[in-house]
Amino acid sequence: MKLLEQRIIKDGIVAPGDVLKVNSFLNHCIDVRFICELGKEFYSLYSDCDVNKILTIETSGVAVSCLAAQFFDVPVVFAKKSKTSNISDDVWSATAHSYTHGNDYNAVVAKEFLGKDDRVLIIDDFLAKGEALEALLSICESAGAAVVGCGIVIEKKYQGGGDKLRQRGIRVESLAMIKSMSEDGKIEFCH
Amino acid sequence: MKLLEQRIIKDGIVAPGDVLKVNSFLNHCIDVRFICELGKEFYSLYSDCDVNKILTIETSGVAVSCLAAQFFDVPVVFAKKSKTSNISDDVWSATAHSYTHGNDYNAVVAKEFLGKDDRVLIIDDFLAKGEALEALLSICESAGAAVVGCGIVIEKKYQGGGDKLRQRGIRVESLAMIKSMSEDGKIEFCH
Repeated sequence: MKLLEQRIIKDGIVAPGDVLKVNSFLNHCIDVRFICELGKEFYSLYSDCDVNKILTIETSGVAVSCLAAQFFDVPVVFAKKSKTSNISDDVWSATAHSYTHGNDYNAVVAKEFLGKDDRVLIIDDFLAKGEALEALLSICESAGAAVVGCGIVIEKKYQGGGDKLRQRGIRVESLAMIKSMSEDGKIEFCH
Repeated sequence: MKLLEQRIIKDGIVAPGDVLKVNSFLNHCIDVRFICELGKEFYSLYSDCDVNKILTIETSGVAVSCLAAQFFDVPVVFAKKSKTSNISDDVWSATAHSYTHGNDYNAVVAKEFLGKDDRVLIIDDFLAKGEALEALLSICESAGAAVVGCGIVIEKKYQGGGDKLRQRGIRVESLAMIKSMSEDGKIEFCH
């Protein structure tokens, strides 16, 4: 998506540790009008898939999911991140590793909000190694929910998480796919 | 707001420890179409206040803020909750206590996203003792930003946080105000 690539070039900051900061429009300050355009794009990709629920994970996924959900006219369920190992019986859960924070967490969804009648679009802001996405997919599998695909704002393609999922037959659509980035701020996209 | 009171009566669950759970439409599963109506209501309350930014705090405040922001056509900045006491120079921060989690945290906003030219509407899902709101107000004060008021989805009026702020001359508008609730599930509203 050209509009997003242009915005990343303009406002994204490549920080040490292979981090792309897009705090000025996605992760801290949310440019709502712009993120709406991304939501519309997800809808154009998945409008014929009978999506009845969007699943995401806190925190940054919530904004883009809610704005996208309006086009689908479906509710958003967001998995909560929990550090406790005491998982109750009434939730679906899966463990994931955060490379950003260097720790493990449980992604948790109450059973009452996800089940076998659901056709789920998973939305998230970033896809790198795919840890969060794997956890959400595992939760959908536990719940017996069908996953129509994943909608990602920014995929760091060179980290391989997206392609690993595509190889398993999962549809992954990323609005911007980064081929490489370097600490002098140069960002290259896949086309 | 009648629509919200009806929804709380229908779907809210009074849980032990004076907790009102509205997970089915606000805090875990987000009924996007419904929350949009709340956003529209915030707009009708504050449309003539020249709001140019909405400030909230992660996580649940993000959804309602983004959906409300569309009517104002302004960006949303969400304060991050940080447990670390190492606060860098480039952020505004304030300490708050979470009664839900029984701990203290720092609410943190990058300086670049809040400053003296801003006219801020603070939005949050719940107001009880007002800890989170006090932290956000303190951040705005540090930043030199003008606060036009606060928009709250559900205020537990009997906990006094809202009235304490009103006594200081801060405009606080709550879409539902709870007068009392009991563990047998009975909820009474202020009118």
